[in-house]
Amino acid sequence: MFAEIITIGDELLIGQVVDTNSAWIGQKLNKIGIEVLRIVSIRDREDEILEAIDNAMKRVNIVLVTGGLGPTKDDITKQTLCKYFHTRLVFSEEVFENIKRVLAGKIPMNALNKGQAMVPEGCTVINNPVGSASVSWFERNDRVLVSMPGVPQEMKVVMTESILPKLHEKFQTDVIMHQTFLVQHYPESVLAEKLELWETALPESIKLAYLPKLGIIRLRLTGRGQDKKEVRALLDSEKAKLEKILGEDIFCEEDTPLEVIIGELLKKKKITVSTAESCTGGSIAARLTSIAGSSEYFNGSIVAYSNEVKMNLLYVSPETLERHGAVSEETVIEMVKGAMKALKTDCAVATSGIAGPGGGTPEKPVGTVWIAAGYKNEIRTYKQETNRGRSMNIERAGNNALLILRDLLK
Amino acid sequence: MFAEIITIGDELLIGQVVDTNSAWIGQKLNKIGIEVLRIVSIRDREDEILEAIDNAMKRVNIVLVTGGLGPTKDDITKQTLCKYFHTRLVFSEEVFENIKRVLAGKIPMNALNKGQAMVPEGCTVINNPVGSASVSWFERNDRVLVSMPGVPQEMKVVMTESILPKLHEKFQTDVIMHQTFLVQHYPESVLAEKLELWETALPESIKLAYLPKLGIIRLRLTGRGQDKKEVRALLDSEKAKLEKILGEDIFCEEDTPLEVIIGELLKKKKITVSTAESCTGGSIAARLTSIAGSSEYFNGSIVAYSNEVKMNLLYVSPETLERHGAVSEETVIEMVKGAMKALKTDCAVATSGIAGPGGGTPEKPVGTVWIAAGYKNEIRTYKQETNRGRSMNIERAGNNALLILRDLLK
Repeated sequence: MFAEIITIGDELLIGQVVDTNSAWIGQKLNKIGIEVLRIVSIRDREDEILEAIDNAMKRVNIVLVTGGLGPTKDDITKQTLCKYFHTRLVFSEEVFENIKRVLAGKIPMNALNKGQAMVPEGCTVINNPVGSASVSWFERNDRVLVSMPGVPQEMKVVMTESILPKLHEKFQTDVIMHQTFLVQHYPESVLAEKLELWETALPESIKLAYLPKLGIIRLRLTGRGQDKKEVRALLDSEKAKLEKILGEDIFCEEDTPLEVIIGELLKKKKITVSTAESCTGGSIAARLTSIAGSSEYFNGSIVAYSNEVKMNLLYVSPETLERHGAVSEETVIEMVKGAMKALKTDCAVATSGIAGPGGGTPEKPVGTVWIAAGYKNEIRTYKQETNRGRSMNIERAGNNALLILRDLLK
Repeated sequence: MFAEIITIGDELLIGQVVDTNSAWIGQKLNKIGIEVLRIVSIRDREDEILEAIDNAMKRVNIVLVTGGLGPTKDDITKQTLCKYFHTRLVFSEEVFENIKRVLAGKIPMNALNKGQAMVPEGCTVINNPVGSASVSWFERNDRVLVSMPGVPQEMKVVMTESILPKLHEKFQTDVIMHQTFLVQHYPESVLAEKLELWETALPESIKLAYLPKLGIIRLRLTGRGQDKKEVRALLDSEKAKLEKILGEDIFCEEDTPLEVIIGELLKKKKITVSTAESCTGGSIAARLTSIAGSSEYFNGSIVAYSNEVKMNLLYVSPETLERHGAVSEETVIEMVKGAMKALKTDCAVATSGIAGPGGGTPEKPVGTVWIAAGYKNEIRTYKQETNRGRSMNIERAGNNALLILRDLLK
């Protein structure tokens, strides 16, 4: 069973907005055995929307359209769908009541919001409990087209609550299963060489993909077939072979963010964590606290950009800074100790480096980051040396800090 | 002049990777007067790649293809392009030398890397100074197709250094100009109503779009035409009218991240900033330090998730926490003062709230965030009350904190 996603909006084409909806939709469809064949982003123009819809309806059974449903004039998806399906907009009392409920108290209702209660005649209107844009479900010759708002939060709610269950019910679907392995310690080509014999011998119905990401390689096995048990068994047998080859270098058997892996580990051990961050600027703390329930194991952080803060709040000695510099193994060791002491935690990570683009020297070029992780009396350090630009240097340092902490806690 | 972007990779369709390349490319092409008509993401399958390329080459003059150039077996873009252009792969000594240089010292060269030195015969090979995948530039009947790596950092370097200049030189291009205004204090529909008369009277060649984003609405005016000066003059005249209508609610006249706006303001005033973060967990600090050169005005932060850290490091009094709770106006006022004192800065922001999904009470439901900004002796507070899910609650609180700080510094 195949689907196509069409995202509508000039802002996507001129690059003002990154399309994150499609990836989310792709994941969810996959879980119910629907494969996305194509994602197409187009402008808010009638002829382009008509062409894209027409092509998609010829190619696949399921067409999911997002965007172009706002109250403002630049949005024309609803009218264009009416044209394609030879129907017209009619007023829906039910949608109007929902809009009033959604806006209640927050925004005074005006003519533009009222216009959002106009829906295509002859389609099934699906309730949008969190927004004023309505959702339309069209069926033609066993093919389905659904038009949804482009606002991610609204799209996610209507997909989860209504559209995914309806699609699952309507279509008999093939089984697609993914398993992702997170691997550390390898550049991509070296890993590929190590896995070559195994990869060549993979059965037809199983595919392998490499997805490198700043110090981590995600290896994804995809199996497909008619029978869930059979696909699972095939994947499990390949997984066993892979584990034999890579052993401990596989640090997780699903595509889980490092901050979740660490969180689970801390909860299991009933211990707390903190961070002392210079060049990562609070981004490790932000990652750890992005997880719901992190207050159970995360106490706090000290972002120490200036040397003064390193000395005053993290107890780094002036002599260490003087003799070895802020970007040094000695400094991050004192920082990680300082974090555990000041924030009273069982473990901590610390970073200090030159994220760039400025600030490099011949001895410590841009991209140099010293990282430490501490747990009770044990401390491990790591020197990161590649320069891939400020934001990637920061993200990679965060990955490395959490990987070292994980090794230490294991 | 129109372009189409084709991104290739199963990981995009199953949603494992978000396509951020296309938005970046769209922005850059726009700046040289090339408009992106369509973005298409497809799987690593020969027939699908051939079809997408063929359609694009019929529709537009410029086709930019990313992805599928890695050393591993799942990548087939190069071979498929050879098929489409009726050519074959030949060994390039020059590319081979570049690969050796790029990998030097980091990774031992193996057969897979050597395979990357095979390039399509008859195309122009463009140097990739930062990676081992080569870039191919094909020309057919005045149309151009460029195949680039999908790794964002490599794509950006080859686009900036080689492809954009070559496209600009080859094609005579129409002028497209955007101007974006950042507006605060309005829900979208209320703003649209306020601007309706002006919007209706906009000249044909100017388009308006609304892009709401967690407390901020970005208004984008797009003008196009033959003559740069004329387009600029038209945009300027509409800009003047818009400013008359919205006045101070427009807080920036370009699409600049808030952390950049704040950074500029702090540099101009030669003052320093810090943050005291509870529910935002360091994400405001991470935003401020994502800007190169932020060490000039950013001293540090204290992420105070636990009450103990709020008391010990930010001097919040136990009585305040006892009487008003951690999520209260009184607490964020003491936090912001504590940050300025402990981190020795001229100004600061503080947040404390219930990001969710758990932790809400009838009096303080999920989504409640108290925010404070302080500058010298003046402190402003704000209570954020909508709940749009954990990550958006956190991001919105960051936006509001920086908006309030900006108002205070102005």
